[in-house]
Amino acid sequence: MSPVEFLSTTPFIGSNEGENEKVALLGVGFDGTTSYRPGTRFGPGSIRTASDGLELYSPLLDFDLEEVNYKDLGDLDIPFGDVNETMTIIRNAISHLLPHYRIVTLGGEHSITFPIIESYLTKYPDLVIFQFDAHCDLRAEYKNVPYSHACVMYHILQKVGKDRMFQIGLRSGTKDEFHLAKDTLLKNPKELLPPIIKNLNDTPIYITVDLDVLDPSVFPGTGTPEPGGFRFNELINLLHIFSGCNIVGCDAVELSPDYDSSGISSITAAKVVRELLALTFLNSQLTTK
Amino acid sequence: MSPVEFLSTTPFIGSNEGENEKVALLGVGFDGTTSYRPGTRFGPGSIRTASDGLELYSPLLDFDLEEVNYKDLGDLDIPFGDVNETMTIIRNAISHLLPHYRIVTLGGEHSITFPIIESYLTKYPDLVIFQFDAHCDLRAEYKNVPYSHACVMYHILQKVGKDRMFQIGLRSGTKDEFHLAKDTLLKNPKELLPPIIKNLNDTPIYITVDLDVLDPSVFPGTGTPEPGGFRFNELINLLHIFSGCNIVGCDAVELSPDYDSSGISSITAAKVVRELLALTFLNSQLTTK
Amino acid sequence: MSPVEFLSTTPFIGSNEGENEKVALLGVGFDGTTSYRPGTRFGPGSIRTASDGLELYSPLLDFDLEEVNYKDLGDLDIPFGDVNETMTIIRNAISHLLPHYRIVTLGGEHSITFPIIESYLTKYPDLVIFQFDAHCDLRAEYKNVPYSHACVMYHILQKVGKDRMFQIGLRSGTKDEFHLAKDTLLKNPKELLPPIIKNLNDTPIYITVDLDVLDPSVFPGTGTPEPGGFRFNELINLLHIFSGCNIVGCDAVELSPDYDSSGISSITAAKVVRELLALTFLNSQLTTK
Amino acid sequence: MSPVEFLSTTPFIGSNEGENEKVALLGVGFDGTTSYRPGTRFGPGSIRTASDGLELYSPLLDFDLEEVNYKDLGDLDIPFGDVNETMTIIRNAISHLLPHYRIVTLGGEHSITFPIIESYLTKYPDLVIFQFDAHCDLRAEYKNVPYSHACVMYHILQKVGKDRMFQIGLRSGTKDEFHLAKDTLLKNPKELLPPIIKNLNDTPIYITVDLDVLDPSVFPGTGTPEPGGFRFNELINLLHIFSGCNIVGCDAVELSPDYDSSGISSITAAKVVRELLALTFLNSQLTTK
Amino acid sequence: MSPVEFLSTTPFIGSNEGENEKVALLGVGFDGTTSYRPGTRFGPGSIRTASDGLELYSPLLDFDLEEVNYKDLGDLDIPFGDVNETMTIIRNAISHLLPHYRIVTLGGEHSITFPIIESYLTKYPDLVIFQFDAHCDLRAEYKNVPYSHACVMYHILQKVGKDRMFQIGLRSGTKDEFHLAKDTLLKNPKELLPPIIKNLNDTPIYITVDLDVLDPSVFPGTGTPEPGGFRFNELINLLHIFSGCNIVGCDAVELSPDYDSSGISSITAAKVVRELLALTFLNSQLTTK
Amino acid sequence: MSPVEFLSTTPFIGSNEGENEKVALLGVGFDGTTSYRPGTRFGPGSIRTASDGLELYSPLLDFDLEEVNYKDLGDLDIPFGDVNETMTIIRNAISHLLPHYRIVTLGGEHSITFPIIESYLTKYPDLVIFQFDAHCDLRAEYKNVPYSHACVMYHILQKVGKDRMFQIGLRSGTKDEFHLAKDTLLKNPKELLPPIIKNLNDTPIYITVDLDVLDPSVFPGTGTPEPGGFRFNELINLLHIFSGCNIVGCDAVELSPDYDSSGISSITAAKVVRELLALTFLNSQLTTK
Repeated sequence: MSPVEFLSTTPFIGSNEGENEKVALLGVGFDGTTSYRPGTRFGPGSIRTASDGLELYSPLLDFDLEEVNYKDLGDLDIPFGDVNETMTIIRNAISHLLPHYRIVTLGGEHSITFPIIESYLTKYPDLVIFQFDAHCDLRAEYKNVPYSHACVMYHILQKVGKDRMFQIGLRSGTKDEFHLAKDTLLKNPKELLPPIIKNLNDTPIYITVDLDVLDPSVFPGTGTPEPGGFRFNELINLLHIFSGCNIVGCDAVELSPDYDSSGISSITAAKVVRELLALTFLNSQLTTK
Repeated sequence: MSPVEFLSTTPFIGSNEGENEKVALLGVGFDGTTSYRPGTRFGPGSIRTASDGLELYSPLLDFDLEEVNYKDLGDLDIPFGDVNETMTIIRNAISHLLPHYRIVTLGGEHSITFPIIESYLTKYPDLVIFQFDAHCDLRAEYKNVPYSHACVMYHILQKVGKDRMFQIGLRSGTKDEFHLAKDTLLKNPKELLPPIIKNLNDTPIYITVDLDVLDPSVFPGTGTPEPGGFRFNELINLLHIFSGCNIVGCDAVELSPDYDSSGISSITAAKVVRELLALTFLNSQLTTK
Repeated sequence: MSPVEFLSTTPFIGSNEGENEKVALLGVGFDGTTSYRPGTRFGPGSIRTASDGLELYSPLLDFDLEEVNYKDLGDLDIPFGDVNETMTIIRNAISHLLPHYRIVTLGGEHSITFPIIESYLTKYPDLVIFQFDAHCDLRAEYKNVPYSHACVMYHILQKVGKDRMFQIGLRSGTKDEFHLAKDTLLKNPKELLPPIIKNLNDTPIYITVDLDVLDPSVFPGTGTPEPGGFRFNELINLLHIFSGCNIVGCDAVELSPDYDSSGISSITAAKVVRELLALTFLNSQLTTK
Repeated sequence: MSPVEFLSTTPFIGSNEGENEKVALLGVGFDGTTSYRPGTRFGPGSIRTASDGLELYSPLLDFDLEEVNYKDLGDLDIPFGDVNETMTIIRNAISHLLPHYRIVTLGGEHSITFPIIESYLTKYPDLVIFQFDAHCDLRAEYKNVPYSHACVMYHILQKVGKDRMFQIGLRSGTKDEFHLAKDTLLKNPKELLPPIIKNLNDTPIYITVDLDVLDPSVFPGTGTPEPGGFRFNELINLLHIFSGCNIVGCDAVELSPDYDSSGISSITAAKVVRELLALTFLNSQLTTK
Repeated sequence: MSPVEFLSTTPFIGSNEGENEKVALLGVGFDGTTSYRPGTRFGPGSIRTASDGLELYSPLLDFDLEEVNYKDLGDLDIPFGDVNETMTIIRNAISHLLPHYRIVTLGGEHSITFPIIESYLTKYPDLVIFQFDAHCDLRAEYKNVPYSHACVMYHILQKVGKDRMFQIGLRSGTKDEFHLAKDTLLKNPKELLPPIIKNLNDTPIYITVDLDVLDPSVFPGTGTPEPGGFRFNELINLLHIFSGCNIVGCDAVELSPDYDSSGISSITAAKVVRELLALTFLNSQLTTK
Repeated sequence: MSPVEFLSTTPFIGSNEGENEKVALLGVGFDGTTSYRPGTRFGPGSIRTASDGLELYSPLLDFDLEEVNYKDLGDLDIPFGDVNETMTIIRNAISHLLPHYRIVTLGGEHSITFPIIESYLTKYPDLVIFQFDAHCDLRAEYKNVPYSHACVMYHILQKVGKDRMFQIGLRSGTKDEFHLAKDTLLKNPKELLPPIIKNLNDTPIYITVDLDVLDPSVFPGTGTPEPGGFRFNELINLLHIFSGCNIVGCDAVELSPDYDSSGISSITAAKVVRELLALTFLNSQLTTK
């Protein structure tokens, strides 16, 4: 694991306690294109610290993370003020790690998902992407910046097409964005997700969770809170539909912890990450290896 | 628009960009009778600043505020410590503006609604009032002060009678207040509102939204949070029932932003105001002019 | 009421205004075993101060606390850093008070419930306990400390057996704890509680409410927030099922007010306490005395 | 002490533990004319709660409050939204208490000092007033409101004349206010205060401390923070010059605790009050009685 | 003033009330290279809102801003995530404004000062720069980013040389930076500044105030607080040494208001800006025009 | 380093980057006897995270930590609710580490210093202790708890006698405590410290810094803020007097980070620790090895 540089951090609960890990956690604290309230750079650290208040056992999935091994790699070392260089660093790091791990990435703002997906597509050309988000993120550019976090799904859509991208929870965007989302937006995910997922069989899946898909009451610590989102259990129940799927990667992004002095946003993000970890391990592809 | 004095402010998103506006935003940062936690004086400014994080397009109403013109007049200049003088200033300002605009008022505490309604009744003698609120506000006086925010609906009730006032969301009051509210309180508004509204046809409607009707988890930044309120979507869905109605005025009051360091209350208030603006414009009376 | 020492405080709304009280409020600001975020020592004071923003009338129960008398005893004077001595002080105080009062205790952390129950069992050997909580609290010991707040229900279970203890709202614990809870956990309390309660007739009941059973959005000011809990009305509706029961004692614990700068957690705790007080008075055993 | 109504509160440390008190604490949580950030209504309660973190012994004055008796009367019950009525209530309460006590008043905003002084002048017609403040408070009226907290010293000046009023710490006001203050402002109080005080002998003295005389770094929790003020020890050393004087009354006003989530403003206010109490007791007139 | 786009905002106190302004306020809310805690993008808006709590009269300078005219231009409209484009926008805007105004710029992070100085040097080739700052800002690049706020004074130094740049308040940097600063750092500015300034006569002066030169107790709301800085009056007294100088431009940067929930940082920044405005007007060059 | 268990954490800046370290950092997040506001358990983690905003170079000492090696051991694993067991764990850990390192301990509350000193006295029987603190900490017991943080220096005094213990900054305590401190308290440390230190030659020195010796404006994030303390530079200048001394150990305790949402307390603590590290390395005993 040599040429990529990681910053050492307090590790996520239960990590780094065994060997032969097949799953890795990676922090990418980038917030250079954030359009409203910045601070997701502190997301990965805050998620790890907050994980200390959680149990390793998920009662809903009846899965105990104590029984598996995963590695917390720490944070990518990135510059401040150079978006393109940051995108390259992320792309390279993911390419470097993909032969060894399924990767759970902790953001950082949503723009980091595009270079991740670019790398993933090299290994998994048939990758299917599920986005949980309050915002469409379907602008071609935002104030002349193409790789803004407001544009991330537009670029992914260009790569994979509307048949391999699904959007859940959208409630904010321009009229044009909602027009563009008419084929990808699942308005009633509780009913629409199960048959879609069933059809995928063992197709590799990537799940990107923009945590602002949660209601601001549940998750105030984010850059662009959008009233009217999911309760925690509504999100978790949708994620649990993926139980058993071939999840090859996922991320949880847009925690900006300093906007929530109560700390519940960080704890909520940590619990989402715990469930994403459990879901990744629940896939038979992985556990049979 | 001369004799009334307005304080200049950061404007609400999308305002002041066209001409011939028929709808105006007005801030009234009065909190002189607040009985518990003060600070609604900072409400109008905070709503406008927070509006910067929202889109102009409402996906639920499929209405884009970019396609219409409205004016943000700024804040009324009011004294500190003189309730009666303040009531007069509000009454005069509204009378001055009513020939030109449908007015969306940003509070400030709920007491400001009474002088507004007094002015409205001069132009619209058959006005019907809908109140969204956690508190009855049906005391005749509070600690000897008649124009307290705890009394505002009592005085309106005296003016319009129980057939033209409807109360939604009430969950706090004295035994006497709930007794008085037995004819005006809609306990199941989701079912009761649609037929009431349908019967009104083009009768002019005023909607007063005390934002503490929302649950404190959704809206902590208010003077008297009362647990057990609406989720954001529950409120918005009730408001959307008014789509197409002849809404001649409305207000959103009781944001006290400094009690919410996360800022979600201000964003929530701004989104409610955006939807109220859209609803006002959706009325055919207005758009055919 | 002599040998027990109480610290004088701002009283809970409506208390100390009559005579011959049969119900008492008692504060126990102990947080000596808190495993994550401390500060429940400030719970009782914060609940009392916040109660000032509430009405005495409960519209859901149609019960007015103005019509009854209850006493706020203030806070128990306890040491810092001596868990065993604290447990003894609590046990003695409760034994001293039980001949005179039904007691509503304001926490403090959940560990205080064990010495309370020990005293109660002396007077009410057939006591049945209902626990509302996010956490199982069923560890035999935590980091070698047996009387930790993570163990309180384990010790109570040893005393009363699985037929006289019911657990509601649990969503966090180890695999072992959930195994141990399989007979006591009511997974669907809305349906399961009514028949259980009906069968109890006049059996004395103790209700312990760990307020973290509420969702962190509703109640962020607590030591170990656990996403995925009840909304306020969900908890209140479950508590109202006990209307008319022979509630001989109850507590509301785990408010750590300094983690919620908005103050809504303290207001929420105060409203839960108001409803617990009303429920205690609604029992015919008490009111006929 | 009958016709005046007090609200019961958590008492200040060391109070209410003896008899025959000659000194009383009184809370007046009024903030009805506050021009910028409101919330001093919560000042008295917050000072009392914060006093719990202090010792009763003042090392600088070598005086132990454990050796004297003083009474905490609680808070005056005042309306919201009626300035004139509030002024009357204060005036009456002070007149009622003055035959029994030297009074240390906890504000509330600075406007409360005028009715206090009016009452004091009846008993002590030769009263001399020392004001510690960042603001001149010398406007004749503010936005047409004469009894605003921005005007309090103007009205006192009319009553006692420029020979019996001294101003310390002023650093904010209009050009006119500073012109008016040219005879009363002590620009170098460290040198000017001692001879003035020496000349007064046993003349009765009233000290009004607007706590915003402290620098905002020391005392952020106030309505109108004004950068450039005293450090804590600078204020305390000036106050200690009054040691042995015939201090017949004093107040500490303008704590708005909710603007300081760290709580240091309330602790600072409580320590100022402790020193004011000690100074009041250090006067031989009092201790020889 | 056409080709530059400004965002409309709440204006600074006293601005926009006359004509023929020679001084302008300009907001530049850029924080794209911030290395630690971001959020200075909200600086300009917060300074303007906080200015509402200040008087227009400066007692220390005996100067009343009511007697002069200045214009608040609003904020520059800049992209998120494109440092180079932002630098160009700033440079162009300043060049466009310089024929008309002396400019007081509100940051934003310190990197904005470099394009401002570049423009100024075109009009004032003999410009002398005074920097008040906790940090040297003398790195040639930071993590490969040359226009980082950690490098701003390095680039200015390259342009003007060590004889025309003075550094005051520095207390943080690498060993190399302090070595480079050995000719420009004024270790005892109270004694060294007056003769330097006297020698300058009417040479045009630019003052850049990185507000973190203040101690974190005075100014916590900043990205990289560095303990051990000036008290407010220490900074103000140093600035007042420039009274009468030919100040042709200045800025106050690095307010990150969301890190200070008490609001004192914004008020402090606003007061520094008020004094900078007064100092700009006190120059005879300006007032004789 | 085997039998002692450490929790892995984000390391302090500059640590763990070399070999053959002679100095170690150790976190002890114990707050079990805290009498007022708890939360120092989060001190070590918060100091380490905040250190990220500092440079490794100390300009005042002209010492660069990049040129030396030191190890961050992480945090001791301690129970919650067992003071005696915690004291034993600390004592054992220090004894285990002392053969290898000079130890800089990050608290945690002040009570942890007693078991540290007990271990140190075994290796350094002639150890001299310097305490920087706002509080005397000279009670024999507090509410019957002998090892309370209010008693720590009493127990140390019993061990080393009044000739080998010096107290600096005290401004709070009972009359009895100040009486007991009359031989150990240095009232004018700026003048008294230099000769004392000079006399000590190479005598081993332990410095315990209760960070509440700083003024609450500088350091609000602590359990018992006491107005009237040192500015940051006042403390640092006193510490720098020890430059060249044989400092064999030191600690910085009583940071309770959650009481300071601005984060400046953690940054201040981290900077004190950086200077303590530098001072430890500046001793010739160490650097010649």
